[in-house]
Amino acid sequence: MRFVALLLAGLVMAGTPVQAQPKSAGAPDPKLVEDLVVANHVLAELGVVDGFGHVSVRHDKDPNRYLMSRSMAPALVKTDDVLEYDLDGVAVDAKGQALFLERFIHGEIYKARPDVKAVVHSHSPGIIPFSVSKTRLQPIYHMSSFLGLDVPVFEIRDVAGPGSNLLVSSAPIGAALAKVLAGNTVVLMRGHGSVTVGTSIPQVVFRAYYAEMNARLQAEAIKLGTVTYLTKEEAAAAAKTNDALVARPWELWKRKAMKAE
Amino acid sequence: MRFVALLLAGLVMAGTPVQAQPKSAGAPDPKLVEDLVVANHVLAELGVVDGFGHVSVRHDKDPNRYLMSRSMAPALVKTDDVLEYDLDGVAVDAKGQALFLERFIHGEIYKARPDVKAVVHSHSPGIIPFSVSKTRLQPIYHMSSFLGLDVPVFEIRDVAGPGSNLLVSSAPIGAALAKVLAGNTVVLMRGHGSVTVGTSIPQVVFRAYYAEMNARLQAEAIKLGTVTYLTKEEAAAAAKTNDALVARPWELWKRKAMKAE
Amino acid sequence: MRFVALLLAGLVMAGTPVQAQPKSAGAPDPKLVEDLVVANHVLAELGVVDGFGHVSVRHDKDPNRYLMSRSMAPALVKTDDVLEYDLDGVAVDAKGQALFLERFIHGEIYKARPDVKAVVHSHSPGIIPFSVSKTRLQPIYHMSSFLGLDVPVFEIRDVAGPGSNLLVSSAPIGAALAKVLAGNTVVLMRGHGSVTVGTSIPQVVFRAYYAEMNARLQAEAIKLGTVTYLTKEEAAAAAKTNDALVARPWELWKRKAMKAE
Amino acid sequence: MRFVALLLAGLVMAGTPVQAQPKSAGAPDPKLVEDLVVANHVLAELGVVDGFGHVSVRHDKDPNRYLMSRSMAPALVKTDDVLEYDLDGVAVDAKGQALFLERFIHGEIYKARPDVKAVVHSHSPGIIPFSVSKTRLQPIYHMSSFLGLDVPVFEIRDVAGPGSNLLVSSAPIGAALAKVLAGNTVVLMRGHGSVTVGTSIPQVVFRAYYAEMNARLQAEAIKLGTVTYLTKEEAAAAAKTNDALVARPWELWKRKAMKAE
Repeated sequence: MRFVALLLAGLVMAGTPVQAQPKSAGAPDPKLVEDLVVANHVLAELGVVDGFGHVSVRHDKDPNRYLMSRSMAPALVKTDDVLEYDLDGVAVDAKGQALFLERFIHGEIYKARPDVKAVVHSHSPGIIPFSVSKTRLQPIYHMSSFLGLDVPVFEIRDVAGPGSNLLVSSAPIGAALAKVLAGNTVVLMRGHGSVTVGTSIPQVVFRAYYAEMNARLQAEAIKLGTVTYLTKEEAAAAAKTNDALVARPWELWKRKAMKAE
Repeated sequence: MRFVALLLAGLVMAGTPVQAQPKSAGAPDPKLVEDLVVANHVLAELGVVDGFGHVSVRHDKDPNRYLMSRSMAPALVKTDDVLEYDLDGVAVDAKGQALFLERFIHGEIYKARPDVKAVVHSHSPGIIPFSVSKTRLQPIYHMSSFLGLDVPVFEIRDVAGPGSNLLVSSAPIGAALAKVLAGNTVVLMRGHGSVTVGTSIPQVVFRAYYAEMNARLQAEAIKLGTVTYLTKEEAAAAAKTNDALVARPWELWKRKAMKAE
Repeated sequence: MRFVALLLAGLVMAGTPVQAQPKSAGAPDPKLVEDLVVANHVLAELGVVDGFGHVSVRHDKDPNRYLMSRSMAPALVKTDDVLEYDLDGVAVDAKGQALFLERFIHGEIYKARPDVKAVVHSHSPGIIPFSVSKTRLQPIYHMSSFLGLDVPVFEIRDVAGPGSNLLVSSAPIGAALAKVLAGNTVVLMRGHGSVTVGTSIPQVVFRAYYAEMNARLQAEAIKLGTVTYLTKEEAAAAAKTNDALVARPWELWKRKAMKAE
Repeated sequence: MRFVALLLAGLVMAGTPVQAQPKSAGAPDPKLVEDLVVANHVLAELGVVDGFGHVSVRHDKDPNRYLMSRSMAPALVKTDDVLEYDLDGVAVDAKGQALFLERFIHGEIYKARPDVKAVVHSHSPGIIPFSVSKTRLQPIYHMSSFLGLDVPVFEIRDVAGPGSNLLVSSAPIGAALAKVLAGNTVVLMRGHGSVTVGTSIPQVVFRAYYAEMNARLQAEAIKLGTVTYLTKEEAAAAAKTNDALVARPWELWKRKAMKAE
């Protein structure tokens, strides 16, 4: 079975020598680091993340590096907490600090999806019920049109067996998750949360927030009876329009998050 | 089919020469502009609008002009952001700034409804489920009696076809929306949001807020079993009484929104 | 029919000469007025009232007088806004200001219930669905044990006919409401809200808040399946215990409401 | 019947002479007292407790003593309000102040569960519906994996009869509650609330918060259809991982609660 193979792969990896420390791709654009710090605070203010969850951005100097904070609550992240990682989840300089157990989510998606520049992982509350249900998350309004026709669900039992701790705590599990994400913008994780991807920090924050809103609103709509979802064509057209508008809420969220400090 | 005709109309319009810049109707009453700015902040504080949504008021000097901010998050609007538009959605002086794609909602309603002095467009969350459901929004308490017997739903597919971006981004779609609104105070937009109209800024804010409240409360009531809605006569009588009381919450909301700055 | 009789009574009243201004019962205990002002702010902070709703207390010098603010949003009430009323709803000195249209709720309950010292009227959101449903509000936990076995619903159509504005805007309608309240602590008003009574300001605020909480929690519990409600004996025993504890949340709420100023 | 025996036991206790004042185990670690004060504020900020509810910690100098505030709203607790109790709920020095009626919850659990170092009792809102329903609380995501397979419900009628005030107001009722808790981390109390236990203050706060979150999310998930819960093995594995991460949200919550002062 597939998960046995992955477990074996994990054991083999555990037995291999420590990887050499990756070299830095150089200092990233300070604006990118600043936006990453802001995104951490915005996601916390919006209730997408709480003490847990993380957001990363691909390095602007090297597509094989990404930036993300050390293991800590997003609302407390400052510039100094941002570290550089290679796509295998090894920090260029961890400064002796703990790293997120699930950093493999980010690296494996950056490997599989060259178009992706930013990734959010969260346990946002509206999403959880859809992660454990046969009811698919589908876009009910234009704000969440980036969801496309519907959203896939990653069942970790398929790759890590029936008794895992549910975390994407290794490269093979991260790769399996990236495979279920495929070309979508969001993938749900059964009994866990979701991952959202985008081409910029403002866009991925926009998507993580409106995916959560869609979940809450869809759940309410279902209780009222049959729901008219966006067609595939409507979703594509509206997503294209919205992509040009992400700066508008981003400015607002940034202002509010910085003011709340 | 009707939407084909509208598409053609849109193409024809696209081919016409740029309209001459409309002349200003003169400086509006500063109190009106101040109330419009306040309304932007109040609607954001009340959760009726987020980074998106807009509110306008008809110009007090000329019924063929209206005032609305440039394209931006309502919570950030200041006096300088307010622009004057003609009823075709052309700004008297855009100052080189982006305009709301859906400004046609406002102009077309002002054309069709001479009694209307203020318009709110929002994606307020409680409303969305009713916009995609066969269940009609109906007033369940006196605060939302302005809803009348029930609320119509605008299906954009009827006029813009099955693959639109869902936005009221042209005069013909705006006119179609105004036609579905007819003589009502609120019209839902399938998979999108709603438009609320009123005879003053405080009244339209009151209505936008309590339409949202009604949606949330009606959804809860439906889950408890059969619902007793207001009769047409009760709705009319209560709406008349409430119209005389809109200054009360307006004072409160204004105070809170200004304090939150 | 009964409501015809009430309409006639109203007409007769409208034709009677203006009542003589009632004499003041003298200055109330300043502590009572202070608590009334605090209660207005606490109820707003707790979300029991919004721009609408009111709270009154019986005058400590004369059981035929009560204290309540002029017509305004509760969150804005200050000491100077508190007026003295007789039990027919006539203000001792209105100072030329507007009075609550529904002040008859208070006077008629003080007439019918000598044990009642404080009254809250609100449109708190959790209660509304129960007011329009056949599902009765019943206590699901000890905090709302004061609800007794269940809560009566006042149908204004029975006394004011099928086309009223739903307001308790006259003494006869107030008396009819008091009759449905009977010996209970809470009465719901169909399509409108509720009235809560108590023997002190802290107690009536406690009850108004936990009646609202019970409504929200009961609605959720019903969705999970059959609900085990408190027995009549449990409700009585728990209500007695809680009555001795109302000072605890009152101190907290008072502190928070005053801090929010 | 069992509850008759308990009532008799209560009567006998009431007739026994006042217990000698227990001796102090000495000053506890100031860090422990500080964390206990912080936990009170954090639980209030998180909405787990309101004016009611309490948290205790076992004394670090003596397993037969625990620390908890006097009877007051958790959000107002300061260092001076923390008292030392023996496991029978007698305060070493009550300083003439009122004690929580339900302090027997804490002492009896500390007696029955030597592994438990901290206890939270609350009426957190999401939990209440599950306490009065046949639907069992079960972990739907890794954050609440400490719930194990599912959560037992304590029916006070079994031990205190059909007309109790629902409070765990005596040692025998506390012992009966501890028996239903057994080896679990949480026990629900029908028509009342819940008790959560842990091996440290940060862990018990984490558990009280995510038990509440699970309740809200599970209720939503059930409305969407059949739910996939964590397996026993997943729950055990995820709980072990999370136990090592409780410091992360604790730091965040502490910072926010202290800032809100």
